[in-house]
Amino acid sequence: MSSSVHVDASGTFLTLVDGTSRPLRFHAVWLRDNALDDQTRAPGNGQRLITIGDIPADTRIATASVAAETLSVTFAPEDKTVAFPISWLVNNAYDRDKTAPLGWLAGNVTTWDGARTAPSFDWTAVQSSSSAKRDWLAAIAELGFAKLTAGPTTEGALIQVADQFGYVRETNYGRHFEVRTEVNPTNLAYTGLGLQAHTDNPYRDPVPSLQILYCLENSAEGGESIVVDGFRVAERLRADNPEGFALLSGYPARFEYKGTDGVWLRSRRPMIELSPDGQLIGIRFNNRSSAPFVDIPFDQMEAYYAAYRQMGSYIDDPDMGVAFKLEPGESFIVDNTRVLHARKGYSGAGSRWLQGCYADKDGLLSTLAVLSEFKEAAE
Amino acid sequence: MSSSVHVDASGTFLTLVDGTSRPLRFHAVWLRDNALDDQTRAPGNGQRLITIGDIPADTRIATASVAAETLSVTFAPEDKTVAFPISWLVNNAYDRDKTAPLGWLAGNVTTWDGARTAPSFDWTAVQSSSSAKRDWLAAIAELGFAKLTAGPTTEGALIQVADQFGYVRETNYGRHFEVRTEVNPTNLAYTGLGLQAHTDNPYRDPVPSLQILYCLENSAEGGESIVVDGFRVAERLRADNPEGFALLSGYPARFEYKGTDGVWLRSRRPMIELSPDGQLIGIRFNNRSSAPFVDIPFDQMEAYYAAYRQMGSYIDDPDMGVAFKLEPGESFIVDNTRVLHARKGYSGAGSRWLQGCYADKDGLLSTLAVLSEFKEAAE
Repeated sequence: MSSSVHVDASGTFLTLVDGTSRPLRFHAVWLRDNALDDQTRAPGNGQRLITIGDIPADTRIATASVAAETLSVTFAPEDKTVAFPISWLVNNAYDRDKTAPLGWLAGNVTTWDGARTAPSFDWTAVQSSSSAKRDWLAAIAELGFAKLTAGPTTEGALIQVADQFGYVRETNYGRHFEVRTEVNPTNLAYTGLGLQAHTDNPYRDPVPSLQILYCLENSAEGGESIVVDGFRVAERLRADNPEGFALLSGYPARFEYKGTDGVWLRSRRPMIELSPDGQLIGIRFNNRSSAPFVDIPFDQMEAYYAAYRQMGSYIDDPDMGVAFKLEPGESFIVDNTRVLHARKGYSGAGSRWLQGCYADKDGLLSTLAVLSEFKEAAE
Repeated sequence: MSSSVHVDASGTFLTLVDGTSRPLRFHAVWLRDNALDDQTRAPGNGQRLITIGDIPADTRIATASVAAETLSVTFAPEDKTVAFPISWLVNNAYDRDKTAPLGWLAGNVTTWDGARTAPSFDWTAVQSSSSAKRDWLAAIAELGFAKLTAGPTTEGALIQVADQFGYVRETNYGRHFEVRTEVNPTNLAYTGLGLQAHTDNPYRDPVPSLQILYCLENSAEGGESIVVDGFRVAERLRADNPEGFALLSGYPARFEYKGTDGVWLRSRRPMIELSPDGQLIGIRFNNRSSAPFVDIPFDQMEAYYAAYRQMGSYIDDPDMGVAFKLEPGESFIVDNTRVLHARKGYSGAGSRWLQGCYADKDGLLSTLAVLSEFKEAAE
């Protein structure tokens, strides 16, 4: 398909007409900043060698032409010519309709409710096969959680899970922590009580963006795990009570944990977090560590609490949660910025012993990106 | 000073009149949710034992009275009576004027420019004296950076800095990394090039919120460190170009790092980050790792770039930066969500060897809070 280019009389932008999409406009300064030549970008690591101040303020397009799927642009006043692959321009186009509803989702995210089965992957496969590992990480990126089965029942095995894609986030709870009944618990997690579905450590900023829970023993009565998609919860709230959605995303909540161990963590973040352009990017919900909410105006507080109650009712709705009982050697990962996890209370004979740790999404998404690129290149 | 209370006829809120402030209103549901009794909050760890769903939707105030600096409230329909210290209510009041300009700052933050001297603390003192440690951490919380002097010149000493208040954030660069000239650098930081002031790893989400840079050798020509207060930069931009401030905070930028080492990190976050209620909470700025900005509408892109250019000019302004040359055994911490750091190029005889690592603010602020509370209790 042949392409053509037209430079506006002002020289401040050009219009690329390519058969594969509608006409796309690009600004002179944007093109110059994103030049791909090796005076602008370092060969090897690809980092930009110039600063915005190195680009003349009166940068404009002198000439532009298309040949062999490449756009050539000569910039004035530098008199510098740079080549851009047409495909690169189409992939990085910004001249498109930006209207999206408040709380829109990234393209690779699929929300779910209790009708879904837990995505499950095999311990040995993800460690020995890069395609199995990629599928496992892709499920976590898309759905916010995944189970891993048939792993060892040895202490510390959960660290090997994190090692597959990234790095443990150490906290005051340790590199990992023991989730079992304690006599003088510093945290209600270390009791046999049921726990409402929650995200972990919302009182921490930055919040750990992944949690791994790994089962070593689970012969007690009860103790099932339940996960709930906080993004689906937010979608329901937005549909049923848009004003409530706007309140929970428009004002920070407060969270606090003051243990008996010289720790006093506090945060000020919303229960529903949006990017500045309205993308749904985070959920924080935890009844145990919610501190007094003091940032909502008096005349909005009742509506805020009504929305909070409604969000809680969706979270508690049995139709929203996926339940499973971990067997020894089984574990699951949750995206702690999205998926809530709960446990049913347990007691009686037998024991329940999980180990938990935190990690971050940057490493997971990086590993996934590299594996996916490798796959695309091989295809 | 005597206090009094009036319950609204609806029972949905009460008004507390206390001599120490203007009348304060509190809602029934807020008071019930924040009840301090040991059926609502676990003794010991203080975590909330109830969920929002456990509170009746028609909760209202049946009666309220004040005696001995305590407010007693009886809630219907539970017929439950809870005592609140008046001082606790005053400290947690939310019935106040919430109007603040876009980009308002937390009360404990002081912004600065090049006229300020680097706050400096002694290695031995902060490790041996809790008041010296508190002052050091308080400076980082208030100003976003501090130097530490007279430390050992042994490899890995920077980890001991992090150990004083929290935990290292391990990344693909390791638990710590070497900042010195490499032959085939995976990152321009590992060259002798000057680096424009920047925040580290904006392509990582969550971003590391603290960075420690520790000097082991610095006999090369050049290589001075410069720090710039990104919050002061944002204040200047807001004053000079409020529309530009709104654009840089209103649309996400994109950042990317694709090393040669199987790493591909990408993020979508604004250069100026605000909380949903407009508090200035973060700065991301890095010419080397800025990816094409594709989330700004076409008709806003020129103004966005003009604001980006203006922000860059303030960052490069010599009057904005505090410069110092680290001696062996000296180090500094920056709040990587606020303070940018630069280095001048270096070359010639001699050597420059720094070690760097990342950590997070949660641990630092927790340690500071505990030390400060202890100080207040002792006074």
